[in-house]
Amino acid sequence: MALTISDIGQSVLDTHYAVRGPIVARAQELEKAGKKIFYCNIGNPQALGQKPLSYIRQILALAEWPGLAGKAKGIFPSDTIAVAEMILKESKFGLGAYSDSKGLPFVRKAVAEFIQKRDSGDGVTVSSNPDNIYLTDGASKGVQTALRMLIASANDGIMIPVPQYPLYSATITLYGGRQIGYFLDEGSLWCLSEKMLEEAFISARAKGLRPKAICIINPGNPTGSVLTRDNIAMVIRFAKEHGLSILADEVYQENIYRPQDRFVSFARVMTELGEKDVSLFSFHSCSKGFLGECGQRGGYMEIRNLPADVLMQITKLQSVSLCSNLAGQIVTYLMVKPPLPGEPSYETYVSERDGILGELKLRAKLLAEGLNRIPGISCQPITGAMYAFPSITLPEGRTDEEYCMDLLEDEGVCLVSGSGFGQQKGTAHFRTTILPPTDQIEEVVRRIARFQATWK
Amino acid sequence: MALTISDIGQSVLDTHYAVRGPIVARAQELEKAGKKIFYCNIGNPQALGQKPLSYIRQILALAEWPGLAGKAKGIFPSDTIAVAEMILKESKFGLGAYSDSKGLPFVRKAVAEFIQKRDSGDGVTVSSNPDNIYLTDGASKGVQTALRMLIASANDGIMIPVPQYPLYSATITLYGGRQIGYFLDEGSLWCLSEKMLEEAFISARAKGLRPKAICIINPGNPTGSVLTRDNIAMVIRFAKEHGLSILADEVYQENIYRPQDRFVSFARVMTELGEKDVSLFSFHSCSKGFLGECGQRGGYMEIRNLPADVLMQITKLQSVSLCSNLAGQIVTYLMVKPPLPGEPSYETYVSERDGILGELKLRAKLLAEGLNRIPGISCQPITGAMYAFPSITLPEGRTDEEYCMDLLEDEGVCLVSGSGFGQQKGTAHFRTTILPPTDQIEEVVRRIARFQATWK
Repeated sequence: MALTISDIGQSVLDTHYAVRGPIVARAQELEKAGKKIFYCNIGNPQALGQKPLSYIRQILALAEWPGLAGKAKGIFPSDTIAVAEMILKESKFGLGAYSDSKGLPFVRKAVAEFIQKRDSGDGVTVSSNPDNIYLTDGASKGVQTALRMLIASANDGIMIPVPQYPLYSATITLYGGRQIGYFLDEGSLWCLSEKMLEEAFISARAKGLRPKAICIINPGNPTGSVLTRDNIAMVIRFAKEHGLSILADEVYQENIYRPQDRFVSFARVMTELGEKDVSLFSFHSCSKGFLGECGQRGGYMEIRNLPADVLMQITKLQSVSLCSNLAGQIVTYLMVKPPLPGEPSYETYVSERDGILGELKLRAKLLAEGLNRIPGISCQPITGAMYAFPSITLPEGRTDEEYCMDLLEDEGVCLVSGSGFGQQKGTAHFRTTILPPTDQIEEVVRRIARFQATWK
Repeated sequence: MALTISDIGQSVLDTHYAVRGPIVARAQELEKAGKKIFYCNIGNPQALGQKPLSYIRQILALAEWPGLAGKAKGIFPSDTIAVAEMILKESKFGLGAYSDSKGLPFVRKAVAEFIQKRDSGDGVTVSSNPDNIYLTDGASKGVQTALRMLIASANDGIMIPVPQYPLYSATITLYGGRQIGYFLDEGSLWCLSEKMLEEAFISARAKGLRPKAICIINPGNPTGSVLTRDNIAMVIRFAKEHGLSILADEVYQENIYRPQDRFVSFARVMTELGEKDVSLFSFHSCSKGFLGECGQRGGYMEIRNLPADVLMQITKLQSVSLCSNLAGQIVTYLMVKPPLPGEPSYETYVSERDGILGELKLRAKLLAEGLNRIPGISCQPITGAMYAFPSITLPEGRTDEEYCMDLLEDEGVCLVSGSGFGQQKGTAHFRTTILPPTDQIEEVVRRIARFQATWK
């Protein structure tokens, strides 16, 4: 008899990933049937018109076909040819061979240098060890590896924000661990407070759970909030006090829209504090920022304060899948080593980068303002990342899942309901990306407004 | 306190993957210290000098930088330009956007057509449904997904060959399932017998295990054996009788070296038998065959006889990691849609393909003959795949792990010990690839011979 659903393990059945759940499946059906769909469910910039950076794609083209530079004289900026040659030389075998399980050594070295340069300053020198860097297929695979290491038994709990990005809840469930939600304060720009962390921790312990780690998403997904240095120091102290590891999801570090905010990494603050006892897993990705190279599946995980024998276990797990894809590893290299002032590609790179970031900033403002003009919808300022997570007032007895499904059917706007991310009891939200082009953002807002005014 | 090894789950600690284990780590150390190493541990063709096919890399270059074809007139064969344009159009957003969780629809459609064409004939029409095809980062990720679905409790067993490819043992252990080894008969070209399957099944049931599936690697890794149609029909009947699913690892389907052997797929034989009750997961990869594109991480899983609700669970799991990398998806497309006779790239493609396959055939013969000339080593003919798995006579009390480690230290030849793949008690083996260039194969054989003659 064929395999049936009753043969499937409970942890698989219990796993949910709202960003690509039933609502998206329905959107695809409607699209097939000819309906115009506005996909605001997922942070997939190039699917919404963002162009890849020329520098990155020129070098990928040269690296994919090594004979190309010699044949195509005058087409490629000279620095892209030099970088592609260096990549082919340093990788030894080009893009067609398995790399080390951790990824190509020269890429990991470049990532370590990037972290050192990004985080050092004001009298603090942050060091980074290439041996503690793992190149991964997007950040998701790194997060999954870290959680795999942390969840050892059915009582092991992982603290995650509410709302959170459902990669965390899905993976914790799949690996047989327990979610410990800590609430973010919507009224104060979704900020993080020690009180909320303590409450969540105490309540988990009272239920017999063993908290193993705390996940922080900074800038926040879906909230967009940007943590301050003091916030981060508080989390590190909290983790230390309770013997927790930290997972720092820092994939939106380039997506910060207000002049008064800036990205501060956990690596930086740990170094400032001289913290050696808290294990840190931090994640970055080529999919967000201004690259938006989701399809290339590039990213890395940097690890601090982990004993060598545990690192070896991680390397072993990575090795079972051999290595992350090489094009993604190269994009990761190019993300951390952009062209420098004076190099032939520099001006174009800066102009493309600033064009994208300027557009995102504009859209973040337009979207939040537009949503706030709709009676029954209240949106915090979008200060970072790529999403809005407004609260909505629903008719008595209705849910935000129903809201999002009906909005899709009526107006073709594909959002994700707040319940997929977690929210305070009695509240309702949706998540939408800020990624559609400006004219489409306005259209999306108009459609949501029309729906909100009439939905019962 | 930082995470320590005692915080790590037992299933992680118990997981072993010999192909990249301690022996490879030691080889890398020795290489860093200046020693010449012959890496025969892993099927990584391009790391051993195999060139990528021009057709594939030309199209990847064009797809990575969409402006290229217009700028580089006369450099690319016209069919590569047309295919790249079609890819950019059909993918909608190029290589930088997440695709559907299952992969790009046009690639899945091409895979289904490939299977239909490969398997139909002699009065049998094999159909394949693109909805049941999942594009994966290499075959490994597909195998992991299938095993994730199958292992639901600590008593669930998966039948795997002895010797096997350690991806299977590693993943079963990591997912908390149980291995049920069935022996292959070394004396008859490592063939598969119903008797061996029955014995393994009965013994597992006697231990209280619940066998859920049987894995078959055809052509065999590490054995190189090629299954006949009748062998495959026997496995399908066996699976049906015992309510097992089948995992068919068919990544070496192009690597068959004797004129009397040919690749027969499980999909074909299932169709011949009209079998509708046995769930089949079959796997293919861009990393083997004559492409050898390991670093691109492309592959697919085709599923048959699985109810829609279980398929939805698989799609859900895939969606948590968003999608496989797009360059890998494109290489998968090009693998299943090679240029046709008369097209501009055809001659070059055929000449490169036949060159590679001819070399592999020659090396398979050279290596087996060379090994068989060494007293104390006995190697079956290498009829398929990319490996030899000879048995070795060891000095009393020594193990094949020690043999391989000392061979590495003394001669710089990096093999994997038979214990990493599984073997009959009282026997010892190693696995070596057939991939080094001809002159290096001869050197490897000389070094093994010298070592074998003197090692105590």
